[in-house]
Amino acid sequence: MRILVQKFGGTSVRNLECMQQVERKVLHALDEGYKVITVLSAMSGETDRLLELARQWSRRPDPAEKDVLVATGEQVSVALFTMLLKDRGLKARSVLGFQAAITTDDAYCKARIHEIDTDRLLEMLEAHDVLVVAGFQGCDPDRRITTLGRGGSDTSAVALAAAVKAERCDIYTDVDGVYTTDPNICSKARKMKKISYDVMLEFAGMGAKVLQIRSVEFAKKFNVPVQVRSTFTDGPGTLVTKEDDTMEAVMVSGIAYDKDQCRITVRQVPDRPGIAAAIFTPLAAAKILVDMIIQNASLDGKTDMTFTICRGDLDQTLEILEGVKAELGAGEVLYDTQVCKVSAIGVGMRNHSGVAAKMFTTLKKENINILMISTSEIKITCLIEEKYTELAVRTLHDVFELAAGQ
Amino acid sequence: MRILVQKFGGTSVRNLECMQQVERKVLHALDEGYKVITVLSAMSGETDRLLELARQWSRRPDPAEKDVLVATGEQVSVALFTMLLKDRGLKARSVLGFQAAITTDDAYCKARIHEIDTDRLLEMLEAHDVLVVAGFQGCDPDRRITTLGRGGSDTSAVALAAAVKAERCDIYTDVDGVYTTDPNICSKARKMKKISYDVMLEFAGMGAKVLQIRSVEFAKKFNVPVQVRSTFTDGPGTLVTKEDDTMEAVMVSGIAYDKDQCRITVRQVPDRPGIAAAIFTPLAAAKILVDMIIQNASLDGKTDMTFTICRGDLDQTLEILEGVKAELGAGEVLYDTQVCKVSAIGVGMRNHSGVAAKMFTTLKKENINILMISTSEIKITCLIEEKYTELAVRTLHDVFELAAGQ
Repeated sequence: MRILVQKFGGTSVRNLECMQQVERKVLHALDEGYKVITVLSAMSGETDRLLELARQWSRRPDPAEKDVLVATGEQVSVALFTMLLKDRGLKARSVLGFQAAITTDDAYCKARIHEIDTDRLLEMLEAHDVLVVAGFQGCDPDRRITTLGRGGSDTSAVALAAAVKAERCDIYTDVDGVYTTDPNICSKARKMKKISYDVMLEFAGMGAKVLQIRSVEFAKKFNVPVQVRSTFTDGPGTLVTKEDDTMEAVMVSGIAYDKDQCRITVRQVPDRPGIAAAIFTPLAAAKILVDMIIQNASLDGKTDMTFTICRGDLDQTLEILEGVKAELGAGEVLYDTQVCKVSAIGVGMRNHSGVAAKMFTTLKKENINILMISTSEIKITCLIEEKYTELAVRTLHDVFELAAGQ
Repeated sequence: MRILVQKFGGTSVRNLECMQQVERKVLHALDEGYKVITVLSAMSGETDRLLELARQWSRRPDPAEKDVLVATGEQVSVALFTMLLKDRGLKARSVLGFQAAITTDDAYCKARIHEIDTDRLLEMLEAHDVLVVAGFQGCDPDRRITTLGRGGSDTSAVALAAAVKAERCDIYTDVDGVYTTDPNICSKARKMKKISYDVMLEFAGMGAKVLQIRSVEFAKKFNVPVQVRSTFTDGPGTLVTKEDDTMEAVMVSGIAYDKDQCRITVRQVPDRPGIAAAIFTPLAAAKILVDMIIQNASLDGKTDMTFTICRGDLDQTLEILEGVKAELGAGEVLYDTQVCKVSAIGVGMRNHSGVAAKMFTTLKKENINILMISTSEIKITCLIEEKYTELAVRTLHDVFELAAGQ
């Protein structure tokens, strides 16, 4: 049994016409001899509508009940889409999280998949041509509904592909692949044919909204080939796969950026062991993701601690830091939301020196001040003032010769 | 453990303010020392919105998928309402059909409850003060979602009350009880304190939209006391219960009517054995409910067959009868939608003669022509021209001395 998993996001199922496009993709896969698992998100706008209801009903909606609420979005999608397939006389059925036996932990609103009942799925696939699975949802061991967090449908799709050993997992979206950078701000951006899991992870981590980061981790772990493609055009898209030789030949694969950043500085922190832990442990406990961290050289036994967070976490972070400040006897807490992370990403960096130097020089030439720097094996990130974002992205894209046709 | 089941319809949960009224009812029951099972319908208008989507997507929506679709209505209600209870610090949780293990057959869109997992429910009740159960839905043995048909939430509530041996099942609605007739057309209509299951069945069957007929059958079978009351006022409502002596003392309990009627006549049917079966078997196969039936005296070996159906079934009925007509060599098929059924209902009729005579005389006095008649132990029904409905109801209500204060 050759199995193909296809996942369609909210814009791809937002109305009847769009669902008919999706139907064509399913029919095409059936023509090619596949059994198809189609994973659908909620119709676009629906999840927001439901979350808005929750906000009206409660200032802090119970997470378990929030999941019961928003899971209806995908349920509506799969029911409507399956009606189309049944009208064509196809053997199809909708499958909800609890029916596919997608078992998760009980971390409501951000659950993690523990297990998928492969036998049950294969049994349903034997009896049907198409299974239309509600993305984003699962159920905990107590059979309560859970959701995997925003964009979780990607993770559902990849996890299902891994469970049934699908030939490939096609993630259909409103863009036709992964680009060397954001085409909206750089007209020379080029669609990549292939990209490694690791590079994709860095792109996803930088807020390139093509694939959810956890779905890429999943794909990497279970070696699921993922194809990112467009619902509305017919191109092959971008294949996310294991690293191979052709990828390493390229020094830098792309330039990513993330404006959803805020820089925090805690001034005059007493410089003694355990200080970093004292600051970051309560943030971690509040599930606030801290990214770049810099500790200045100490002066008179005091130091400044600077780090970045997502802007949405700012209020909560400041609240927590007020407590920490008093406890440590630190100075004032400063923040700046007018910042942006810009990164050069590529597996080739490992074997090429000079990427960092080239990046710094380029930014300097454009008079862009670098506020913070962090590096990894396959990524160099600079925090800059937000207003320079487009200039930095375009210039770096040129310098690393990523443009179309090159 | 004293358990109270409370069911609230769509208008009672149509927005936040209404749900807060519902919350007060739950809190009151908790104050009285009950563990509470609250059964909710979809917010009013929601089921229709979903069915309209289904109609847009498919001319004949797959019934199984239609159930997956509309079941989201109740899911939204229970999630939002449970958020309110959780905000108060109550031990509450939502319970969907599959979680309450309400097992039904697989007759999608009109499933019947086979079994409820009582142990599971009692276990959940031990751990919680309030279970907020999605009405109208269950799941079949294959774990697919089913719904119980329009108004099925009443049946859910009564079935749950029977399963956990609840002290009472309170059905909250937008009217404050069961009336001797429709207060909208008869200002003298009086709210009844008590009514027997059998009389309630006749009222429900006549389209009095207070309780779903199957829920009353269920209540009768398992002897569940059902209280019909209003969400928006505090009165005791009407208790639907076993027949007792006080009930029998009253000859007629109420006057019901049903305008959703259509009279069909098949002319010149050859009068030979099996003819009635030939006409009504295909209608039954199409799930068309035939109510009053009259066969005229035979003339020249031909007879006229007249019967009533619901207006919504008219097109399908005419289609089926076209085939039957050709097969039997019958004459033309006539129909009339301007008709109405009016009934006098009461357990006391069994022991009082003359109810029928009184009814016929009364209608005659008002010059209302009786088109068809049917009788049972506790009901006498006349089909009349629709335009006389209000006059007939008011006059009969007077004649049988049902008015308030009498």
